Amino acid sequence: MIKASGLKLRFCTNETQATRGKFVEKLQRLGFNISVNEVTAPAPAACRVLRERNLRPHLLVHDDLVPEFDQLDKANPNCVVIGDAADNFSYKNLNEAFRVLIGLENPILISLGRGRYYKETDGLKLDVGVYMKALEYACDIQAEVVGKPAKMFFQSALAEMEVEPQQAIMIGDDIVNDVGGAQQCGMRALQVRTGKYRPCDEQHPEVKADGYVNNLAEAVDIIVKQLHK
Amino acid sequence: MIKASGLKLRFCTNETQATRGKFVEKLQRLGFNISVNEVTAPAPAACRVLRERNLRPHLLVHDDLVPEFDQLDKANPNCVVIGDAADNFSYKNLNEAFRVLIGLENPILISLGRGRYYKETDGLKLDVGVYMKALEYACDIQAEVVGKPAKMFFQSALAEMEVEPQQAIMIGDDIVNDVGGAQQCGMRALQVRTGKYRPCDEQHPEVKADGYVNNLAEAVDIIVKQLHK
Repeated sequence: MIKASGLKLRFCTNETQATRGKFVEKLQRLGFNISVNEVTAPAPAACRVLRERNLRPHLLVHDDLVPEFDQLDKANPNCVVIGDAADNFSYKNLNEAFRVLIGLENPILISLGRGRYYKETDGLKLDVGVYMKALEYACDIQAEVVGKPAKMFFQSALAEMEVEPQQAIMIGDDIVNDVGGAQQCGMRALQVRTGKYRPCDEQHPEVKADGYVNNLAEAVDIIVKQLHK
Repeated sequence: MIKASGLKLRFCTNETQATRGKFVEKLQRLGFNISVNEVTAPAPAACRVLRERNLRPHLLVHDDLVPEFDQLDKANPNCVVIGDAADNFSYKNLNEAFRVLIGLENPILISLGRGRYYKETDGLKLDVGVYMKALEYACDIQAEVVGKPAKMFFQSALAEMEVEPQQAIMIGDDIVNDVGGAQQCGMRALQVRTGKYRPCDEQHPEVKADGYVNNLAEAVDIIVKQLHK
């Protein structure tokens, strides 16, 4: 419906456990009409940064994400890229990433998000942000975060659409990562009352959504109606 | 020689990969005349804290340290104790510790140190402080640190000897954890120019040792001479 209205559309995800290809397949199975080049995700955003700065990454990521970095030179690494590596977050692998960083004159840690934890069917799981903090403390450095809520992440989504922030609207369920991040970048942002949404988000001390909708369909209705006014 | 002079002696270690028993055996093999009750270590210090506050720990520690907690009730845990768990720092174990904490109304994390890393024959290894920071961030809490440089750790060593801080002198190789910690507790502190010592420690921005010695034997000589003046 968004697409039929001639509006440009972009899916912004912090998914770092799989390639965009896998992510799109999942959404297609759920009935979304979506292709890989409509997805903004941390791994390709990181690849752009790495290429621009001639960085060769040591990867501490999920096995299924590795193909996103296929095109990059990874020999003799001069930075570490950390994603939601799940079971790859072993003591051995964390030590290896640490040794790469501590061996660099100017240690660069690029993190594909700053999330604390997420829920899976078998319970809560620690997210990439937790291991980012671990390596930050170990090396006394600050990671560069690629992914929501980083301003740069939303900016690259806008750039890909060739749209100005004030012309765009973000719809998401996460008050800080979605709404806060988009607003910092100059976009308006709606929070959907589904998924991660909790009623207390509407009294969040730092972030105030530009509006609330009960679900994604309602958001689309409102936007399309505005368009035809 | 210290003992022969009638001086009271206490070995303060941040060792949390083994029981005091194992630690003492190692020092005895190196020629030190030492017994278990002359050792102040984080695990027994933590046990005292746990008993005083009726805390039942979930342990994320090295297998070899577990016997130090034998006497404690560990059913239905209401806190987490984290030590240098080495290979036990798996994603699975860290998730388990996290779930205990996040399930508590008032999450209590007790850390047996705040070290960043240490050196072993096969390279640098991440220390307990790194995983403490990870869980702190995951749960948005502050850990309570037992072990050097915590003031309370040196205070319990003094209490065990029944000695006032101004009557005591600390000899150690770590400018922050040994010298800084002891001084905060009111003790004088000598840094030995061996082990972890690096020349730049003598220009440390925050900690200034009361004196330097080239090795432990020199420190003992100076102390014994002062005594016989």
